[in-house]
Amino acid sequence: MTNEELKIKGELARKASYLLASLPSTLKNEALLAMAGALEERQEEILRANAQDMNSAKERGMGKAMLDRLLLTPARIKDMAEGLRALVSLPDPVGEVEAMWKGAQEIEIGRMRVPLGVIGIIYEARPNVTVDAAGLCLKTGNAVILRGSSDALQSNKIITAVLADAAESSGMPRGSIQLIEDPRRETAVQLMKLNQYLDVLIPRGGAGLIQSVIENATIPVIETGIGNCHIYVDSWADLQMAEEIIVNAKTQRPAVCNAAESLLVHEKVAREFLPKAGKRLMEMGVEIRGCPRTRELLPGTGPATEEDYAAEFLELILSVKVVDSLDEAMEHIRKYGTKHSEAIVTEHYGSARAFLQGVDAAAVYVNASTRFTDGFQFGFGAEIGISTQKLHARGPMGLKELTTVKYIIYGNGQTRK
Amino acid sequence: MTNEELKIKGELARKASYLLASLPSTLKNEALLAMAGALEERQEEILRANAQDMNSAKERGMGKAMLDRLLLTPARIKDMAEGLRALVSLPDPVGEVEAMWKGAQEIEIGRMRVPLGVIGIIYEARPNVTVDAAGLCLKTGNAVILRGSSDALQSNKIITAVLADAAESSGMPRGSIQLIEDPRRETAVQLMKLNQYLDVLIPRGGAGLIQSVIENATIPVIETGIGNCHIYVDSWADLQMAEEIIVNAKTQRPAVCNAAESLLVHEKVAREFLPKAGKRLMEMGVEIRGCPRTRELLPGTGPATEEDYAAEFLELILSVKVVDSLDEAMEHIRKYGTKHSEAIVTEHYGSARAFLQGVDAAAVYVNASTRFTDGFQFGFGAEIGISTQKLHARGPMGLKELTTVKYIIYGNGQTRK
Repeated sequence: MTNEELKIKGELARKASYLLASLPSTLKNEALLAMAGALEERQEEILRANAQDMNSAKERGMGKAMLDRLLLTPARIKDMAEGLRALVSLPDPVGEVEAMWKGAQEIEIGRMRVPLGVIGIIYEARPNVTVDAAGLCLKTGNAVILRGSSDALQSNKIITAVLADAAESSGMPRGSIQLIEDPRRETAVQLMKLNQYLDVLIPRGGAGLIQSVIENATIPVIETGIGNCHIYVDSWADLQMAEEIIVNAKTQRPAVCNAAESLLVHEKVAREFLPKAGKRLMEMGVEIRGCPRTRELLPGTGPATEEDYAAEFLELILSVKVVDSLDEAMEHIRKYGTKHSEAIVTEHYGSARAFLQGVDAAAVYVNASTRFTDGFQFGFGAEIGISTQKLHARGPMGLKELTTVKYIIYGNGQTRK
Repeated sequence: MTNEELKIKGELARKASYLLASLPSTLKNEALLAMAGALEERQEEILRANAQDMNSAKERGMGKAMLDRLLLTPARIKDMAEGLRALVSLPDPVGEVEAMWKGAQEIEIGRMRVPLGVIGIIYEARPNVTVDAAGLCLKTGNAVILRGSSDALQSNKIITAVLADAAESSGMPRGSIQLIEDPRRETAVQLMKLNQYLDVLIPRGGAGLIQSVIENATIPVIETGIGNCHIYVDSWADLQMAEEIIVNAKTQRPAVCNAAESLLVHEKVAREFLPKAGKRLMEMGVEIRGCPRTRELLPGTGPATEEDYAAEFLELILSVKVVDSLDEAMEHIRKYGTKHSEAIVTEHYGSARAFLQGVDAAAVYVNASTRFTDGFQFGFGAEIGISTQKLHARGPMGLKELTTVKYIIYGNGQTRK
């Protein structure tokens, strides 16, 4: 794909975005329902394309977990369709005037929510992201340019075609949903620099993908999803509660970004807490990599390296460190954390308050599992990802985070003095 | 300056930012007052350093307008000090919990305003930006790394020293306000890639500076201030009002980003409007560059090129085009506008509504001058710039725009099911 062809897609998306911006919510909702229906009706085509992706992936020796992420089944297609239908009942943020007030000389100033415009999404293997992203962008009046991984290319091609056809038949402008089919890396890099046509880039995937986008993009980027999350067990913790929380945060779904990767334990409670909680974690299949004090209390565990403290394992491995104070725990989190989700377990008011104030992350918890950092758990509904940067959106990004504002000003001839 | 030295500054700023984040508003306000006092007390040192900058600039042949921007006087230093004092009475957004609600399993979720962390400001000649930026960042609990232009180096050095000394004496952490003194371009580029230490970069200056930051930065950027603003005179306009608005928007202060650069006139009213308004503008010293139809109605005016329609003149030049419809006006604005401020003059409800909805800009006006796009005119108080991008902040960026949010979650042992 040449840069010229990429620009044609960009131009088409830009034009679609102008029309999408002022479409009524009812029309966008009808399109979402049509898209959901089309996914189910054209299920056979989708499954056939997915089988092609699965075969090539197996030939290339893709691992079992990755293969499972790539696989589509009738049940998974139904889930994707249901995801689109669920968007219909969420309120459309576009057009809402959040506030209106009088400025200088009685000009009336309103702050109106409007779509971002054209959103680029660069993502890895899971084909359901194609559906999620297209649905969320359409609901919020944004045109979307999708760039999935080559592993899922056949699946993404047919899914995008099905969605784009259904959307267009329901009156959405052509170019509202587009896919970059060229799998080459340089095409992705060109996309990251199309400032004229794209308003924002959202990468969804592993640390390597996110880093590549940050380094190459000239379009504004929203970083998502790298989570090296900590549970800190304070000297004032309810130790039974702490045990339930670390077990949940580590093992309930270890491959997600809000799972815990590291456990910090105050030295005053380490002797009572670690042998019991450690044993339970190990029985659940968790490999523990600890500091020297941890290893004394948990014989048979391996040492934790600097890399372990910095790692987002995304599997049943946990780094553990005994700390002398709350301050040391916060220092450790500052050094190794990724500003995603961090938790303290404590019954002490001052410790809770210091941790909430002092830890710099999208979500800071007292006495709950980090696994709650999620659009549905927070009550936002569907999300496009978890932002771990500080501009524009932080934490779960729902519909509102896919919009921006513009000021609308009503005057009756005012001029500046 | 080596990259190592830059990192040391970055590390110092990062550490300062942790402390700044939880300082009480009263302490930050005392520091602002001390900084204001110090500027006035050490006025002689500042004027001496500024004289050095002025001399070198004159030797290099700097133009008169630029020299005036560089010049400091006792009155201007007083204004800078007053600007800091004015910040004291503005509410501190940090620590405000904007909303609190119950999520899954009754976890209590609050959205708390917190500082961005470390802000980099890259700016051009005017030394008062040094004071504005330092004050706004300190008020909002952010550490700041300033990188002014080499033209103002001596002035910026002494001003930063005065402010940093006063801040530190008032209990602010060391490293809260720092200046990059090395004038080399590669140092600026290194700064733009210090993701580990900086949270956001705000360039303030001309199109060249902004473009360089967009191309080089890996840190999130907030673009500011390029304004190719249009006034569209609709077929239903009150023509006397339209004349007052274009005269004001073009001539009241032509060198600022919210001044009008282009006038679009509906063909139905061009014959009545243009000769009268054009004559008045020309009498006020405005050079008009028009389309063929404009030139027919305004003999003696030159032709407008593509470059003219795209230009942010920042002086008494105006491009003028006669259009056949509101749609053509909006198309023109989409093609040439910079998404800053756009105005329609009309008495027609439908035209006003279509323009407000269809024009994609930070501020869209009906029947008022674009010159109102400004933090004080909007009622926000002091601003760090006008954002022309869509992420995080759009339009005038006041104190709130220098903060982000974090979610604070109170539980009593909840784990995810």
